[in-house]
Amino acid sequence: MTTVVQSTTLAEFLQRPETKPASEYINGKISQKSMPQGEHSLIQVELCEAINRTAKPQKIALAFPELRCVFGGAAIVPDISVFRWERIPREPSGRIANRFETYPDWAIEILSPDQSFGNVLNKLLHCSQHGTELGWLIFPEEANILTIFPNQRVEMLTGTAQLPILSNIDLTLTVEQVFSWLIL
Amino acid sequence: MTTVVQSTTLAEFLQRPETKPASEYINGKISQKSMPQGEHSLIQVELCEAINRTAKPQKIALAFPELRCVFGGAAIVPDISVFRWERIPREPSGRIANRFETYPDWAIEILSPDQSFGNVLNKLLHCSQHGTELGWLIFPEEANILTIFPNQRVEMLTGTAQLPILSNIDLTLTVEQVFSWLIL
Repeated sequence: MTTVVQSTTLAEFLQRPETKPASEYINGKISQKSMPQGEHSLIQVELCEAINRTAKPQKIALAFPELRCVFGGAAIVPDISVFRWERIPREPSGRIANRFETYPDWAIEILSPDQSFGNVLNKLLHCSQHGTELGWLIFPEEANILTIFPNQRVEMLTGTAQLPILSNIDLTLTVEQVFSWLIL
Repeated sequence: MTTVVQSTTLAEFLQRPETKPASEYINGKISQKSMPQGEHSLIQVELCEAINRTAKPQKIALAFPELRCVFGGAAIVPDISVFRWERIPREPSGRIANRFETYPDWAIEILSPDQSFGNVLNKLLHCSQHGTELGWLIFPEEANILTIFPNQRVEMLTGTAQLPILSNIDLTLTVEQVFSWLIL
Protein backbone atom coordinates (compact mmCIF):
# COMPACT_ATOMS: atom_id res chain seq x y z
CA MET A 1 0.00 0.00 0.00
CA THR A 2 3.04 2.26 0.32
CA THR A 3 4.41 3.73 -2.88
CA VAL A 4 7.81 5.30 -2.68
CA VAL A 5 9.13 7.84 -5.15
CA GLN A 6 12.71 8.86 -4.62
CA SER A 7 14.71 12.05 -5.07
CA THR A 8 12.55 15.10 -4.75
CA THR A 9 12.88 18.10 -2.50
CA LEU A 10 10.57 19.12 0.33
CA ALA A 11 9.61 22.28 -1.58
CA GLU A 12 8.67 20.23 -4.65
CA PHE A 13 6.74 17.78 -2.49
CA LEU A 14 4.74 20.57 -0.85
CA GLN A 15 3.64 21.87 -4.24
CA ARG A 16 2.02 18.60 -5.21
CA PRO A 17 -1.73 18.20 -4.72
CA GLU A 18 -2.77 16.36 -1.54
CA THR A 19 -3.56 12.67 -1.95
CA LYS A 20 -5.98 10.40 -0.11
CA PRO A 21 -4.67 8.77 2.04
CA ALA A 22 -2.13 11.52 2.68
CA SER A 23 1.41 11.30 1.36
CA GLU A 24 4.40 12.06 3.53
CA TYR A 25 7.94 13.25 2.86
CA ILE A 26 10.74 12.14 5.15
CA ASN A 27 14.45 11.46 4.57
CA GLY A 28 14.07 12.55 0.94
CA LYS A 29 11.41 9.93 0.21
CA ILE A 30 7.70 10.17 -0.45
CA SER A 31 5.37 7.48 0.79
CA GLN A 32 1.61 7.29 0.99
CA LYS A 33 -0.13 6.38 4.25
CA SER A 34 -2.26 3.24 4.41
CA MET A 35 -6.01 3.46 3.95
CA PRO A 36 -7.29 3.37 7.54
CA GLN A 37 -9.35 0.36 8.55
CA GLY A 38 -11.76 -0.35 11.40
CA GLU A 39 -9.43 -0.79 14.36
CA HIS A 40 -7.26 2.11 13.28
CA SER A 41 -10.18 4.50 12.83
CA LEU A 42 -11.86 3.57 16.08
CA ILE A 43 -8.72 4.01 18.21
CA GLN A 44 -8.00 7.30 16.40
CA VAL A 45 -11.40 8.82 17.07
CA GLU A 46 -11.73 7.53 20.66
CA LEU A 47 -8.27 8.78 21.58
CA CYS A 48 -8.84 12.23 20.03
CA GLU A 49 -12.09 12.47 21.96
CA ALA A 50 -10.52 11.32 25.24
CA ILE A 51 -7.73 13.89 24.93
CA ASN A 52 -9.96 16.76 23.79
CA ARG A 53 -12.64 16.06 26.42
CA THR A 54 -10.19 17.05 29.14
CA ALA A 55 -7.63 19.27 27.34
CA LYS A 56 -9.91 21.46 25.20
CA PRO A 57 -12.28 22.99 27.82
CA GLN A 58 -9.26 23.92 29.95
CA LYS A 59 -7.39 25.28 26.88
CA ILE A 60 -4.41 23.05 27.61
CA ALA A 61 -4.05 21.23 24.31
CA LEU A 62 -5.87 20.05 21.18
CA ALA A 63 -5.68 16.68 19.43
CA PHE A 64 -5.95 16.73 15.62
CA PRO A 65 -6.41 13.65 13.44
CA GLU A 66 -4.47 13.49 10.15
CA LEU A 67 -2.88 16.93 10.34
CA ARG A 68 0.08 17.73 8.11
CA CYS A 69 3.07 18.99 10.12
CA VAL A 70 6.09 20.40 8.26
CA PHE A 71 9.34 20.63 10.26
CA GLY A 72 12.94 19.44 10.27
CA GLY A 73 13.00 18.96 6.50
CA ALA A 74 10.02 16.59 6.55
CA ALA A 75 6.28 16.83 5.92
CA ILE A 76 4.46 14.20 7.95
CA VAL A 77 0.88 13.41 8.88
CA PRO A 78 0.72 11.63 12.25
CA ASP A 79 -2.49 9.70 12.93
CA ILE A 80 -2.98 12.07 15.88
CA SER A 81 -1.02 15.28 16.54
CA VAL A 82 -1.53 16.94 19.91
CA PHE A 83 -0.48 20.58 20.26
CA ARG A 84 -0.30 22.48 23.53
CA TRP A 85 -2.80 25.36 23.37
CA GLU A 86 -0.19 28.13 23.19
CA ARG A 87 1.74 26.30 20.44
CA ILE A 88 -1.19 25.91 18.03
CA PRO A 89 -0.18 28.01 14.97
CA ARG A 90 -2.47 31.02 14.58
CA GLU A 91 -3.07 33.74 12.01
CA PRO A 92 -2.58 37.37 13.21
CA SER A 93 -6.40 37.45 13.60
CA GLY A 94 -6.22 34.69 16.21
CA ARG A 95 -7.77 32.19 13.84
CA ILE A 96 -6.06 28.78 13.60
CA ALA A 97 -3.42 28.61 10.84
CA ASN A 98 -3.90 26.29 7.90
CA ARG A 99 -0.26 25.32 7.65
CA PHE A 100 1.41 23.82 10.69
CA GLU A 101 5.12 24.41 10.23
CA THR A 102 6.19 22.97 13.56
CA TYR A 103 6.36 19.68 15.49
CA PRO A 104 3.45 18.33 17.54
CA ASP A 105 4.00 18.10 21.30
CA TRP A 106 2.60 14.58 21.30
CA ALA A 107 2.49 12.40 18.18
CA ILE A 108 0.48 9.19 17.98
CA GLU A 109 0.64 6.50 15.32
CA ILE A 110 -1.53 3.39 15.04
CA LEU A 111 0.13 0.58 13.09
CA SER A 112 -2.02 -0.88 10.32
CA PRO A 113 -1.55 -4.52 9.31
CA ASP A 114 -0.02 -3.61 5.93
CA GLN A 115 2.15 -0.77 7.22
CA SER A 116 5.92 -0.75 7.43
CA PHE A 117 6.91 -0.56 11.07
CA GLY A 118 10.22 1.06 10.18
CA ASN A 119 8.61 3.98 8.37
CA VAL A 120 6.20 4.63 11.21
CA LEU A 121 8.87 4.46 13.91
CA ASN A 122 11.07 6.73 11.78
CA LYS A 123 8.33 9.36 11.80
CA LEU A 124 8.07 9.27 15.59
CA LEU A 125 11.86 9.38 16.00
CA HIS A 126 11.97 12.38 13.62
CA CYS A 127 9.40 14.07 15.89
CA SER A 128 11.42 13.19 19.02
CA GLN A 129 14.58 14.64 17.47
CA HIS A 130 12.82 17.92 16.67
CA GLY A 131 11.14 18.72 19.97
CA THR A 132 8.14 16.39 20.37
CA GLU A 133 7.86 15.49 24.06
CA LEU A 134 5.96 12.24 23.72
CA GLY A 135 5.27 9.63 21.05
CA TRP A 136 3.01 6.61 21.07
CA LEU A 137 3.15 3.79 18.56
CA ILE A 138 0.06 1.64 19.02
CA PHE A 139 0.13 -2.00 17.88
CA PRO A 140 -3.50 -3.17 17.73
CA GLU A 141 -2.57 -6.74 16.78
CA GLU A 142 -0.20 -7.21 19.69
CA ALA A 143 -2.14 -5.07 22.18
CA ASN A 144 0.92 -3.13 23.25
CA ILE A 145 2.09 0.46 22.89
CA LEU A 146 5.64 1.66 22.32
CA THR A 147 6.19 5.02 24.01
CA ILE A 148 8.90 7.41 22.85
CA PHE A 149 10.46 9.98 25.18
CA PRO A 150 12.99 12.77 24.58
CA ASN A 151 16.45 11.61 23.46
CA GLN A 152 14.74 8.78 21.56
CA ARG A 153 14.32 6.71 24.70
CA VAL A 154 11.59 4.09 24.29
CA GLU A 155 9.48 1.90 26.53
CA MET A 156 7.06 -0.87 25.52
CA LEU A 157 3.89 -1.00 27.61
CA THR A 158 1.24 -3.67 27.84
CA GLY A 159 -1.72 -4.82 29.96
CA THR A 160 -2.45 -2.75 33.03
CA ALA A 161 0.56 -0.45 32.58
CA GLN A 162 -0.38 3.21 32.89
CA LEU A 163 0.39 5.22 29.77
CA PRO A 164 2.45 8.42 29.86
CA ILE A 165 0.34 11.46 28.94
CA LEU A 166 1.50 14.89 27.78
CA SER A 167 2.04 16.82 31.01
CA ASN A 168 -0.86 18.98 32.32
CA ILE A 169 -3.47 16.91 30.49
CA ASP A 170 -5.65 15.39 33.18
CA LEU A 171 -6.07 11.94 31.65
CA THR A 172 -5.34 8.49 33.05
CA LEU A 173 -5.25 5.57 30.64
CA THR A 174 -3.89 2.04 30.78
CA VAL A 175 -2.91 0.05 27.69
CA GLU A 176 -5.84 -2.30 28.33
CA GLN A 177 -8.28 0.62 28.37
CA VAL A 178 -7.12 1.79 24.93
CA PHE A 179 -7.65 -1.66 23.42
CA SER A 180 -10.96 -2.10 25.23
CA TRP A 181 -12.32 0.58 22.86
CA LEU A 182 -12.14 -2.03 20.10
CA ILE A 183 -14.83 -4.14 21.79
CA LEU A 184 -18.14 -2.59 20.81
CA MET B 1 3.96 -19.21 13.76
CA THR B 2 4.04 -17.99 17.39
CA THR B 3 2.16 -20.04 19.94
CA VAL B 4 1.63 -18.46 23.30
CA VAL B 5 0.89 -20.41 26.47
CA GLN B 6 0.17 -18.27 29.48
CA SER B 7 0.83 -18.53 33.20
CA THR B 8 3.84 -20.68 33.90
CA THR B 9 6.95 -19.91 35.93
CA LEU B 10 10.49 -19.56 34.60
CA ALA B 11 11.54 -22.65 36.61
CA GLU B 12 8.72 -24.70 35.04
CA PHE B 13 9.60 -23.39 31.59
CA LEU B 14 13.27 -24.33 31.97
CA GLN B 15 12.31 -27.93 32.82
CA ARG B 16 10.48 -28.39 29.53
CA PRO B 17 12.30 -30.10 26.66
CA GLU B 18 13.81 -27.74 24.07
CA THR B 19 11.72 -27.16 20.94
CA LYS B 20 12.70 -26.43 17.34
CA PRO B 21 12.57 -23.54 16.65
CA ALA B 22 13.45 -22.56 20.22
CA SER B 23 10.79 -21.35 22.65
CA GLU B 24 11.31 -18.30 24.80
CA TYR B 25 9.93 -17.15 28.13
CA ILE B 26 9.48 -13.44 28.79
CA ASN B 27 6.97 -11.46 30.87
CA GLY B 28 5.40 -14.71 32.06
CA LYS B 29 4.59 -15.86 28.53
CA ILE B 30 6.02 -18.60 26.36
CA SER B 31 6.34 -18.10 22.63
CA GLN B 32 8.09 -20.07 19.95
CA LYS B 33 10.52 -18.41 17.54
CA SER B 34 9.77 -18.41 13.81
CA MET B 35 11.33 -21.04 11.57
CA PRO B 36 14.24 -19.13 10.01
CA GLN B 37 14.09 -18.52 6.27
CA GLY B 38 16.66 -17.60 3.64
CA GLU B 39 17.30 -13.93 4.34
CA HIS B 40 17.29 -14.47 8.08
CA SER B 41 19.76 -17.37 7.96
CA LEU B 42 22.14 -15.65 5.58
CA ILE B 43 22.35 -12.43 7.61
CA GLN B 44 22.76 -14.49 10.79
CA VAL B 45 25.68 -16.54 9.51
CA GLU B 46 27.43 -13.66 7.72
CA LEU B 47 27.19 -11.41 10.75
CA CYS B 48 28.45 -14.11 13.16
CA GLU B 49 31.38 -14.70 10.82
CA ALA B 50 32.16 -11.00 10.44
CA ILE B 51 32.17 -10.49 14.21
CA ASN B 52 34.14 -13.65 15.02
CA ARG B 53 36.72 -13.05 12.26
CA THR B 54 37.94 -9.99 14.13
CA ALA B 55 36.89 -10.59 17.75
CA LYS B 56 37.82 -14.28 18.22
CA PRO B 57 41.55 -14.30 17.27
CA GLN B 58 42.10 -11.33 19.57
CA LYS B 59 40.02 -12.93 22.36
CA ILE B 60 37.80 -9.86 22.58
CA ALA B 61 34.37 -11.42 22.10
CA LEU B 62 32.46 -14.33 20.59
CA ALA B 63 29.22 -14.29 18.59
CA PHE B 64 26.85 -17.22 19.13
CA PRO B 65 23.80 -17.97 16.97
CA GLU B 66 20.63 -19.19 18.75
CA LEU B 67 22.05 -19.34 22.27
CA ARG B 68 19.68 -19.53 25.21
CA CYS B 69 20.37 -16.76 27.75
CA VAL B 70 18.56 -16.84 31.12
CA PHE B 71 18.52 -13.58 33.10
CA GLY B 72 16.17 -11.04 34.64
CA GLY B 73 13.35 -13.57 34.99
CA ALA B 74 13.36 -14.43 31.27
CA ALA B 75 14.82 -17.16 29.08
CA ILE B 76 15.46 -15.81 25.59
CA VAL B 77 17.26 -16.94 22.47
CA PRO B 78 18.52 -13.95 20.48
CA ASP B 79 19.31 -14.66 16.83
CA ILE B 80 22.90 -13.64 17.69
CA SER B 81 24.33 -13.16 21.20
CA VAL B 82 27.77 -11.59 21.45
CA PHE B 83 29.66 -12.01 24.72
CA ARG B 84 32.87 -10.21 25.64
CA TRP B 85 35.61 -12.84 26.09
CA GLU B 86 35.89 -12.41 29.86
CA ARG B 87 32.11 -12.62 30.31
CA ILE B 88 31.66 -15.98 28.53
CA PRO B 89 30.40 -18.34 31.27
CA ARG B 90 32.97 -21.06 31.99
CA GLU B 91 33.15 -24.25 34.07
CA PRO B 92 35.84 -24.35 36.79
CA SER B 93 37.93 -26.35 34.26
CA GLY B 94 37.95 -23.35 31.91
CA ARG B 95 35.63 -25.11 29.47
CA ILE B 96 32.67 -23.06 28.17
CA ALA B 97 29.52 -23.46 30.29
CA ASN B 98 26.44 -25.06 28.82
CA ARG B 99 24.01 -22.76 30.57
CA PHE B 100 24.36 -19.05 30.04
CA GLU B 101 22.68 -17.41 33.03
CA THR B 102 23.53 -13.85 32.09
CA TYR B 103 22.81 -11.18 29.49
CA PRO B 104 24.71 -10.90 26.20
CA ASP B 105 26.81 -7.76 25.73
CA TRP B 106 25.37 -7.33 22.24
CA ALA B 107 22.09 -8.88 21.14
CA ILE B 108 20.99 -9.05 17.51
CA GLU B 109 17.57 -9.93 16.14
CA ILE B 110 16.56 -10.29 12.50
CA LEU B 111 12.84 -9.74 11.91
CA SER B 112 11.14 -12.49 9.92
CA PRO B 113 8.10 -11.64 7.80
CA ASP B 114 5.71 -13.54 10.10
CA GLN B 115 7.23 -12.34 13.35
CA SER B 116 5.63 -9.96 15.82
CA PHE B 117 7.70 -6.81 15.97
CA GLY B 118 6.54 -6.09 19.51
CA ASN B 119 7.80 -9.41 20.88
CA VAL B 120 11.18 -9.00 19.22
CA LEU B 121 11.63 -5.41 20.40
CA ASN B 122 10.55 -6.48 23.90
CA LYS B 123 13.37 -9.02 23.98
CA LEU B 124 15.94 -6.38 23.06
CA LEU B 125 14.52 -3.91 25.59
CA HIS B 126 14.66 -6.63 28.27
CA CYS B 127 18.35 -7.10 27.37
CA SER B 128 18.97 -3.33 27.52
CA GLN B 129 17.33 -3.12 30.95
CA HIS B 130 19.55 -5.91 32.30
CA GLY B 131 22.99 -4.77 31.17
CA THR B 132 23.26 -5.40 27.42
CA GLU B 133 25.31 -2.57 25.92
CA LEU B 134 24.05 -2.76 22.34
CA GLY B 135 21.07 -4.17 20.48
CA TRP B 136 20.35 -4.41 16.78
CA LEU B 137 16.96 -5.14 15.28
CA ILE B 138 17.43 -5.86 11.58
CA PHE B 139 14.51 -5.32 9.17
CA PRO B 140 15.40 -7.15 5.95
CA GLU B 141 12.23 -6.02 4.15
CA GLU B 142 12.78 -2.35 4.88
CA ALA B 143 16.60 -2.45 4.69
CA ASN B 144 17.03 -0.57 7.93
CA ILE B 145 18.36 -1.42 11.38
CA LEU B 146 17.04 -0.18 14.72
CA THR B 147 19.89 0.16 17.22
CA ILE B 148 19.26 0.05 20.97
CA PHE B 149 21.59 1.74 23.43
CA PRO B 150 21.67 1.79 27.26
CA ASN B 151 18.63 3.40 28.93
CA GLN B 152 16.50 2.03 26.07
CA ARG B 153 17.57 4.81 23.72
CA VAL B 154 17.01 3.87 20.08
CA GLU B 155 18.19 5.03 16.70
CA MET B 156 17.02 3.87 13.26
CA LEU B 157 19.79 3.59 10.69
CA THR B 158 19.60 3.16 6.94
CA GLY B 159 21.69 3.37 3.77
CA THR B 160 25.28 4.44 4.21
CA ALA B 161 24.96 5.05 7.98
CA GLN B 162 27.75 3.42 9.95
CA LEU B 163 26.50 0.88 12.48
CA PRO B 164 27.50 1.02 16.15
CA ILE B 165 29.65 -1.98 17.10
CA LEU B 166 30.37 -3.38 20.59
CA SER B 167 33.41 -1.39 21.76
CA ASN B 168 36.86 -2.91 21.17
CA ILE B 169 35.67 -5.02 18.25
CA ASP B 170 37.55 -3.79 15.21
CA LEU B 171 34.71 -3.93 12.70
CA THR B 172 33.26 -1.25 10.43
CA LEU B 173 29.89 -1.91 8.81
CA THR B 174 27.28 0.23 7.14
CA VAL B 175 23.61 -0.70 6.91
CA GLU B 176 24.01 -1.13 3.13
CA GLN B 177 26.88 -3.56 3.62
CA VAL B 178 24.76 -5.79 5.86
CA PHE B 179 21.98 -5.98 3.28
CA SER B 180 24.44 -6.45 0.40
CA TRP B 181 25.08 -9.93 1.88
CA LEU B 182 21.63 -10.89 0.60
CA ILE B 183 22.74 -10.49 -3.03
CA LEU B 184 24.55 -13.70 -3.93
